[in-house]
Amino acid sequence: MIRINENFLKLQAGYLFPEIGRRVAAYAAQHPEARIIRLGIGDVTEPLPPAIIEAMHKAVEEMASGETFRGYGPEQGYEFLRRAIIDNDFAPRGVSLEADEVFISDGSKCDTGNFQEIFGLDNVVAVADPVYPVYVDTNVMAGRTGQAQEKGRYGGIVYMPCIPENGFVPELPKQPVDMIYLCYPNNPTGAVATREQLARWVAYARENMAIILFDAAYEAFIRDPEIPHSIYEIDGAKEVAVEFRSFSKTAGFTGVRCALTVVPKALHAYKADGEAVAVHPLWARRHSTKFNGASYISQAAAAAVYTAAGQAQVRSIINIYMANAAMIREALTSLGYEVYGGVNAPYVWLKTPGGMGSWEFFDKLLREANVVGTPGAGFGASGEGYLRLSAFNKPQRVREAMERLSRLSLE
Amino acid sequence: MIRINENFLKLQAGYLFPEIGRRVAAYAAQHPEARIIRLGIGDVTEPLPPAIIEAMHKAVEEMASGETFRGYGPEQGYEFLRRAIIDNDFAPRGVSLEADEVFISDGSKCDTGNFQEIFGLDNVVAVADPVYPVYVDTNVMAGRTGQAQEKGRYGGIVYMPCIPENGFVPELPKQPVDMIYLCYPNNPTGAVATREQLARWVAYARENMAIILFDAAYEAFIRDPEIPHSIYEIDGAKEVAVEFRSFSKTAGFTGVRCALTVVPKALHAYKADGEAVAVHPLWARRHSTKFNGASYISQAAAAAVYTAAGQAQVRSIINIYMANAAMIREALTSLGYEVYGGVNAPYVWLKTPGGMGSWEFFDKLLREANVVGTPGAGFGASGEGYLRLSAFNKPQRVREAMERLSRLSLE
Repeated sequence: MIRINENFLKLQAGYLFPEIGRRVAAYAAQHPEARIIRLGIGDVTEPLPPAIIEAMHKAVEEMASGETFRGYGPEQGYEFLRRAIIDNDFAPRGVSLEADEVFISDGSKCDTGNFQEIFGLDNVVAVADPVYPVYVDTNVMAGRTGQAQEKGRYGGIVYMPCIPENGFVPELPKQPVDMIYLCYPNNPTGAVATREQLARWVAYARENMAIILFDAAYEAFIRDPEIPHSIYEIDGAKEVAVEFRSFSKTAGFTGVRCALTVVPKALHAYKADGEAVAVHPLWARRHSTKFNGASYISQAAAAAVYTAAGQAQVRSIINIYMANAAMIREALTSLGYEVYGGVNAPYVWLKTPGGMGSWEFFDKLLREANVVGTPGAGFGASGEGYLRLSAFNKPQRVREAMERLSRLSLE
Repeated sequence: MIRINENFLKLQAGYLFPEIGRRVAAYAAQHPEARIIRLGIGDVTEPLPPAIIEAMHKAVEEMASGETFRGYGPEQGYEFLRRAIIDNDFAPRGVSLEADEVFISDGSKCDTGNFQEIFGLDNVVAVADPVYPVYVDTNVMAGRTGQAQEKGRYGGIVYMPCIPENGFVPELPKQPVDMIYLCYPNNPTGAVATREQLARWVAYARENMAIILFDAAYEAFIRDPEIPHSIYEIDGAKEVAVEFRSFSKTAGFTGVRCALTVVPKALHAYKADGEAVAVHPLWARRHSTKFNGASYISQAAAAAVYTAAGQAQVRSIINIYMANAAMIREALTSLGYEVYGGVNAPYVWLKTPGGMGSWEFFDKLLREANVVGTPGAGFGASGEGYLRLSAFNKPQRVREAMERLSRLSLE
């Protein structure tokens, strides 16, 4: 008798974004005249810039000729892209990597979801709260947690509250943990971690033989020169951390699909008997067995991000989004909201006014301002009482959303 | 202490294709003058035809404008593609599917590797022998097997020999099995399964509450009108089978990346207490949690396969490969080889002459004819004494390879 993986039955029924989509669709159906402005889901809105478009056309044309056609590429990604990444994103920050320490994939959602597979089921998982749901849900599916409990938390996971008092960077856990998911610049709070804060986590992982799964998908939005872009800017991190990066938000690739994971050869995990095992060959085996390379066109597009023209064009798009974030911050601050993030990240995290619940404020914004945010409670118990606004939209739409918020009755 | 998934340590060190690559590279380094002809790895060689190239350019151009830019698509794939697949590949064969029973992905290697995740670890896995290694290796990683034993077999897996005597379609297993991997047209043997043979497997799965994981990646190569292209052409299969399909071999997408999995809503698996659970929502949850959609450009390219021009152009490329397969069959047969496959599949499976071992004959072919095949033993114990030749190459190269084989000394 074919048996299901019963861990799937532990998953909470309503995933956040489908629930938002349902509420927005229901409102729109009842109010077809409403001009809804979406600052909810973190999807980019600007088209791809010319340097990337040109590279994609060229890659497509290569596929049309027997001389230049490309079939299966290396599962780990083309070396031209892996070298461009290292030369541009890591070497200038003092991080030296070998080309085969970089694994190209079709998305960070896949990588952050899949990486846990190479670790044992008896490891203790620690996540920030609020948190990107994929880290948690994939560990639930794997069987590394107990049943769902109150407020949507799962037994066996260590939740580390991220609140204004700690600058949305968690305290070190009191109990031993093995797999630590950190994301900075943070989704959803828009917070960043300082060099000292990251160094404290690296020291913790080294002392406790833990591994940090560091999600740097939003590093391109960092403006403050003191804030590290990579966890490998911290001495000793290569022995205890993998790093996930994506072209999705950096270069508008949410529909193109290209990302990368750095797995240093110095990184080790352990057998039950305590023997150290290098993580790199385990991930290489997983990656080459269950994945067949990202699209050549997507990889060619990603490489174009690192040309001089590509860099300038991508930066100017990021500037548009960061100007939006500043606009949101300023508007909300002048309206008296308590506002976080939006300085080194494309997300603004605002305290709901008057002690309203996250979903209550979400509904109010939708109904009275026709603006869609993301309820903080959807990211975890510590997100209750907050709402995330995304800077990914056209400036005029963001401006209009802020005007509508200024007319919102908070009585 | 971070613990590895020790199941990974059960994996055999040498994966087949890297070992072939190593031997070919070593030979080429010693004999730089050798003009090596590769009929080993199953990668396509013809460039993409005009209808697909045109669709990709158009999709790229859409990404350049704010009016037509596409960010995140539906994780399950665009409906325009899912409908085109159903209308062209399934409906004409009498198979009715709902649009949301089709899941678009970036490759069948991923899908066939990932699908096992939604099933329990206590299921018994049955595979054909010889077999595409991904089915086995991903179950080893998950922990559904014991240690590797003699001839590379793993404890706990039921291996079903595929030999000339059964037409390379396995007998029904004597012991109960739960997850049955079948691939027809077959990689590596090039065999096909008749309607009666598939019906026997569907009946077995229904009687034994098992699930068939049916890999139809090569269905486009079927010439015989009596051979089913889909397992759903068998009555009752929707209750017991998922089906994997790919544009890789059908339309030359090995570098473009697009595939699909069909998960009928009628398909059920079971909890430990015997309660039936629909498989569709489990896979939908897995797919949307760990995957973020295939590249829009790849999906637009796949949809172009179903235009009138696309169909004609793709068929003419398949005709090239199938003419190669016929050439290989005829040449080897006239040379006195025992030859299988190559009629409804792009692979020819030949018995090594004089009782030579697979790797011995591989080395002889490489050294004396500078032709690369794939040793049958690399696909499993029952593949020992066979070699796979792929029809994916330029006709003049295949012709030259056959001429070289005709001069091979078999004394």
